Amino acid sequence: MSITVVGSVALDSITSNEGSVERALGGSAIHFSNAASLTSDVRIVGVVGGDFPFDDVRFLKDRGVDFSSVEVVEDGKTFFWKGRYEGDMNTAITEITDLNVFENFAPKLDGKAAASEFLFLANIHPALQDHVLQEKQGNPFVMLDSMNLWIDTTPDALDKVIRQVDGVILNDQEIRSFTGINNLLMAGKEILQRGPGYVIIKKGEHGVLAMSKDWIIVLPAIPLEKIVDPTGAGDSFAGALVGYLDRAGKLDQETWKLALLYATCVASFNVRDFSVAGIAGIKGQDITECFNSFKKYFFIPGDIDVTTHVTV
Amino acid sequence: MSITVVGSVALDSITSNEGSVERALGGSAIHFSNAASLTSDVRIVGVVGGDFPFDDVRFLKDRGVDFSSVEVVEDGKTFFWKGRYEGDMNTAITEITDLNVFENFAPKLDGKAAASEFLFLANIHPALQDHVLQEKQGNPFVMLDSMNLWIDTTPDALDKVIRQVDGVILNDQEIRSFTGINNLLMAGKEILQRGPGYVIIKKGEHGVLAMSKDWIIVLPAIPLEKIVDPTGAGDSFAGALVGYLDRAGKLDQETWKLALLYATCVASFNVRDFSVAGIAGIKGQDITECFNSFKKYFFIPGDIDVTTHVTV
Repeated sequence: MSITVVGSVALDSITSNEGSVERALGGSAIHFSNAASLTSDVRIVGVVGGDFPFDDVRFLKDRGVDFSSVEVVEDGKTFFWKGRYEGDMNTAITEITDLNVFENFAPKLDGKAAASEFLFLANIHPALQDHVLQEKQGNPFVMLDSMNLWIDTTPDALDKVIRQVDGVILNDQEIRSFTGINNLLMAGKEILQRGPGYVIIKKGEHGVLAMSKDWIIVLPAIPLEKIVDPTGAGDSFAGALVGYLDRAGKLDQETWKLALLYATCVASFNVRDFSVAGIAGIKGQDITECFNSFKKYFFIPGDIDVTTHVTV
Repeated sequence: MSITVVGSVALDSITSNEGSVERALGGSAIHFSNAASLTSDVRIVGVVGGDFPFDDVRFLKDRGVDFSSVEVVEDGKTFFWKGRYEGDMNTAITEITDLNVFENFAPKLDGKAAASEFLFLANIHPALQDHVLQEKQGNPFVMLDSMNLWIDTTPDALDKVIRQVDGVILNDQEIRSFTGINNLLMAGKEILQRGPGYVIIKKGEHGVLAMSKDWIIVLPAIPLEKIVDPTGAGDSFAGALVGYLDRAGKLDQETWKLALLYATCVASFNVRDFSVAGIAGIKGQDITECFNSFKKYFFIPGDIDVTTHVTV
């Protein structure tokens, strides 16, 4: 089994109450892969400039992340984002967005990527997501993320691609904005009616609401005393979720519950440090310890283990 | 065992997307009692005008709510509130607040009320809450609610009374505002350091976060397809919670988990109809059915029953 993610590979300069980092690893495909590679082989389809520090992603390669489908534009610069968090840390304040080589990103699925069992379309222009879908082979399980920019500017293109995927993952504000429905359950049902079998609504510090035509799952997030950097938390959540599903080989409600619970634990590590550092160094034992504490916070039976598939 | 609640008894005119009601039963003490009386005997300490429709509260009296400590000012008018809900239904837009006889409310605990095992200080001026505390007898378990008005205008008086109670129940915005701390876990810990043994943070549609010095509990709310009227949801939640604790006779983490879960179910009925109607007509069987559906949404073991103490 393997996962292909199509998305941004970036360098981020981030400031929060807890400090700052300069030109650290970022982008949706990086954060997704950082989490998904805890369980699975991951192939990134993306683009970087000649300035990209490939030495910094060695830890990802060691965990089975394949960068051979990342195009390198030698005379270009890598997507750069600078932002800061204040107050409740829920919303980033963007200071600089330099798309650079990402502006002309034309994702191509080579043979291996096209044949993956799981395909994750991270947050890029919906027309590009649609293009990728035309290149896939076989019948992969396809999940899609998006953002307010595309919901506001290209809602029809986004709708077209959403109707072709198996699962949609959005945050609460995004799904409300896209559907025009305030009630999250009804907004999710609206998406289900357009075709996808699964809708995952990320609610940040408030957890997650997931649904299919047959079931609903709600989980709180893990309360943390300190948030260092929430950048990439949603992508890490998605990566852990898809990674778990990829290894479990099943899509029944019980498997989704465990996958969402596992993703909740992994995403909680993302926010504990800047950039990829929160998840980069963790082992299965760390996730187990986090999960065992979380078990006591609500009603998870003591014998459940969500780290079965973790390979680090 | 019995519960005394000190708070407002009001008439509410409410408009939402689902319709409207005129001069319907409302106020914190009414909503609290509506839920608490599903399990327990409740005594209300409050004040109404000569216009109060005592016929309308017969169903509460039938469930063991004692109105004999509700002062009737014959030539006065009952506290009246008019408001409406729009959009995400999370925030009420106030159109009219006529305090009427509530403006000069001077709560007095008569013998029975003063000797209750549970005392709930609903949202009234903290100086009045403090005054009530001086009148209590014995060693009741005291919980306190408040609101932004008192947090903004009389923070010192609120702090003084918070330091004397056993439990504090606030919503997420209120506790952030009162403590000046954005992180809910840290805000709750700050309250614990001031004396109370338990802090309950209501997060509306996102559930509840509760904590003591020894444990943390997080629960999601029940996702609902339709919210008719959220007025009193927080007071119903508190009433169900205190009602459960009153009957359970224990305060360990497992009891709090079940009490919070039970309160989550009961509060979900509050928002399904206007005023008190959502909870007024329910039976234990309705709560059981709601709970059994909710069990499937996350990880509640099948053999748990939270309706043990329900007497309707």
